[in-house]
Amino acid sequence: MPAAATRLTAGAIAAQLSLELDGDSDTPVSGINSLADANAEDAVFVADPKYLPQLADTRAGTAILSPAHRAQFAGTALLSDNPYLAYARLSQLLYPLSTPAAGVHGTALIDASAHVDPTASIGPYVVVAANARIAAGCVVGAHCVLGESVTLGAHTRLHARVVIHDRVALGTQCTVHSGAVIGSDGFGFAPDAAKRWHKIQQIGSVRIGDRVEIGANTTIDCGAIDDTVIADGVILDNQIQIGHNVHIGENAALAGCTGVAGSTHIGARVQVGGHSALLGHLQIADDVILMGHSVVSGSLRSAGVYASVMPVMPVRVWRRLVARFRQLDRRA
Amino acid sequence: MPAAATRLTAGAIAAQLSLELDGDSDTPVSGINSLADANAEDAVFVADPKYLPQLADTRAGTAILSPAHRAQFAGTALLSDNPYLAYARLSQLLYPLSTPAAGVHGTALIDASAHVDPTASIGPYVVVAANARIAAGCVVGAHCVLGESVTLGAHTRLHARVVIHDRVALGTQCTVHSGAVIGSDGFGFAPDAAKRWHKIQQIGSVRIGDRVEIGANTTIDCGAIDDTVIADGVILDNQIQIGHNVHIGENAALAGCTGVAGSTHIGARVQVGGHSALLGHLQIADDVILMGHSVVSGSLRSAGVYASVMPVMPVRVWRRLVARFRQLDRRA
Amino acid sequence: MPAAATRLTAGAIAAQLSLELDGDSDTPVSGINSLADANAEDAVFVADPKYLPQLADTRAGTAILSPAHRAQFAGTALLSDNPYLAYARLSQLLYPLSTPAAGVHGTALIDASAHVDPTASIGPYVVVAANARIAAGCVVGAHCVLGESVTLGAHTRLHARVVIHDRVALGTQCTVHSGAVIGSDGFGFAPDAAKRWHKIQQIGSVRIGDRVEIGANTTIDCGAIDDTVIADGVILDNQIQIGHNVHIGENAALAGCTGVAGSTHIGARVQVGGHSALLGHLQIADDVILMGHSVVSGSLRSAGVYASVMPVMPVRVWRRLVARFRQLDRRA
Repeated sequence: MPAAATRLTAGAIAAQLSLELDGDSDTPVSGINSLADANAEDAVFVADPKYLPQLADTRAGTAILSPAHRAQFAGTALLSDNPYLAYARLSQLLYPLSTPAAGVHGTALIDASAHVDPTASIGPYVVVAANARIAAGCVVGAHCVLGESVTLGAHTRLHARVVIHDRVALGTQCTVHSGAVIGSDGFGFAPDAAKRWHKIQQIGSVRIGDRVEIGANTTIDCGAIDDTVIADGVILDNQIQIGHNVHIGENAALAGCTGVAGSTHIGARVQVGGHSALLGHLQIADDVILMGHSVVSGSLRSAGVYASVMPVMPVRVWRRLVARFRQLDRRA
Repeated sequence: MPAAATRLTAGAIAAQLSLELDGDSDTPVSGINSLADANAEDAVFVADPKYLPQLADTRAGTAILSPAHRAQFAGTALLSDNPYLAYARLSQLLYPLSTPAAGVHGTALIDASAHVDPTASIGPYVVVAANARIAAGCVVGAHCVLGESVTLGAHTRLHARVVIHDRVALGTQCTVHSGAVIGSDGFGFAPDAAKRWHKIQQIGSVRIGDRVEIGANTTIDCGAIDDTVIADGVILDNQIQIGHNVHIGENAALAGCTGVAGSTHIGARVQVGGHSALLGHLQIADDVILMGHSVVSGSLRSAGVYASVMPVMPVRVWRRLVARFRQLDRRA
Repeated sequence: MPAAATRLTAGAIAAQLSLELDGDSDTPVSGINSLADANAEDAVFVADPKYLPQLADTRAGTAILSPAHRAQFAGTALLSDNPYLAYARLSQLLYPLSTPAAGVHGTALIDASAHVDPTASIGPYVVVAANARIAAGCVVGAHCVLGESVTLGAHTRLHARVVIHDRVALGTQCTVHSGAVIGSDGFGFAPDAAKRWHKIQQIGSVRIGDRVEIGANTTIDCGAIDDTVIADGVILDNQIQIGHNVHIGENAALAGCTGVAGSTHIGARVQVGGHSALLGHLQIADDVILMGHSVVSGSLRSAGVYASVMPVMPVRVWRRLVARFRQLDRRA
């Protein structure tokens, strides 16, 4: 855990994050730490009650707590009905992203017809094609490749080695992690009578809203004809695959290794557990929650929590159960 | 959807694609579009009968249709028994890939012993090692890295940021999407008595046929001793993992996020749904079709359609079912 | 299969690998090959008895065998109780990795505050940020990007196009394959009352031990507060996703396409089959073995072999079985 960029007091934090302070407002806060490792200048948080017993032993000077748990901590308390959110906001206050100097690195190759805002930062060995537009405050990391007519909204940040294909548009304040590929061809092929595949040119693109986060090595395909669409506030973890013409609604959250096949529409605020698979051409209603490793082969028309995970068992038990399962067909 | 590179007439398209025309052969066609968004200069297609009702309302001037559905469209018809294939061919006619100018970008580093055909295009910051051979008409995108003795057949195209390791051979007219890694080490280690792993040098390579498509961030390992082999016409979607010494037969198609473990042989024309897992050392017969999210733990000796997807259910129902499933062992 | 870098005799191999020789110690060995393709100067091995019948027909001059099988081979035998391990060691002897010349390529951009040992090799277009430390004998492939204060222990090798984020530490003799991303942000967000996601700055890092292997396009997230930890001797295959604050114990082995969600602790010597999913906040005991495509949704407190793979069946059978499975709830 690094030292925070700034050193604040509990009182200053309470004021900036609109939290109620109970204790010494001058308590210094120079970092966030775990309950076990914190020292007097660290802030800790308890969002899950199972960690409350550790509050008695922590050496932290400041803790973010629900008011109901205030009595269990002897130090300075920052009180919130949503300690996890308060912790998130404090993390942004204490550990703001470093912003590299504005300007284009001498090794970056920017097409003459591209527009790069003078406040943007373009890293080494970046390649930007014709008619791309990079807005104010963008950060484009080393080795990124941006295709023709790509647009990045203000304050969008690409980590090192992101590829954005032709005509993809990202909104403002997006974050794209290393290795992501946005706008690669959708998987569209037509078989002929000899079962040879004929490629369908993928002429749609990808439209990505504001405040979208895209994880490392995640891939998002362009649309076959219409666009693939990721709405505002969506968060995608690492190694997710989004097929052509998928739509993902506002503030949906997909955990790592999930795949969404072509033309599936995911509603707003949907949460998808890691390693899930959504087949193609489905409709997933707003506010659906899929547990980890869900497999969705039909549309889900109403909000609710869904699961299909078959958990591991000792292999001998498992083999007997699979045998019994196969027998179900005969016994019914 | 971008404007097409060329503007044709329905008559010219019928002639070039050997389709039957029914209507005004001078109907202009300047793009392909969806039924909902098309205008008079667009062509649309109907391959799935469920979209037939939209034909009455589309403003498209031209439609690719099965002869049986011709009466349902008032405009110019291009008739085919396989409208989906005709659409694929039209997409290639109207939206040919742009071909960058031949030549080697000034920032590309090409070993003196490598051979690059003068008609090939090598992008910025490409690195090509000793004895590589890049044939006529190849396009190597920005930031690609080609190892020693790599060969690319004529008109093969690598998108930005592809890594091809030493001695890998690709045939003609292949397409490799961004982030793919071909020829990385197979996962071969031998444990000693202390359960420490000793690496087995992976001395095989990867041989890839003609007209193979490889998706974004897909990985294909080199063989342990013999080669990993991908036959002509195979299409691989994004984020697929192909283990060492896998063989994939002609015109097989694997959808995204599928993993194939070492030494499994997949027959010709096999189709694998997305997010499937094939364990190692299996034989999959020609023409097998695996539904999405299939898990294959034994060889499949005959053609047919297979599935193992257990679809999501509301979590309370699911938990009861898993409990019942566990009880099967006791009840039998 | 390439020619070996060196040409040895069976006697020299026996001496160097401490194997018992039975036969002509002058038998030349210039490569390792498969039983089917070997010639007189090749060594073969038999670790799995199912390949024993091929020993009669191989043209190999030398074979690595268990003493019990010696009689089945007419040529020179190298005897070991663990032929697979002996084969691994021979592969390293005959096919040592080529080591590029020491020094920094003229196109590499190394921050002035970074330290690169003069015996290390830094490839073209590499970018190394402030205060990074690259130890003796390291090899950093083309297009790698190393963040601030990254440390690489002696003789660690990064293949082309690896990204290592700020403050990540790798030990000695590690190998990282192309496309891997180490230290990307963990997936940490707190929802507010409107279900908008607020990012939690991920201030931990990743600590990786000695002799760790990390596969192509694998991603390892940095910790939220504390570090993500990969112990000595761990081997990770391609396209694995390791969430924030995961711990993986010594000599564990994870096969391809596996995902491990945040804060799960995996014990020493655990083996995870390909395409497995481990949910978050679990404890997996030392020496657990998970079969391919396992899904782990609860802690596993004791060593043993576990499975949850539901194998494919013909789709008609499968659909009936799923229907029966759903009925279990009613019949119980």
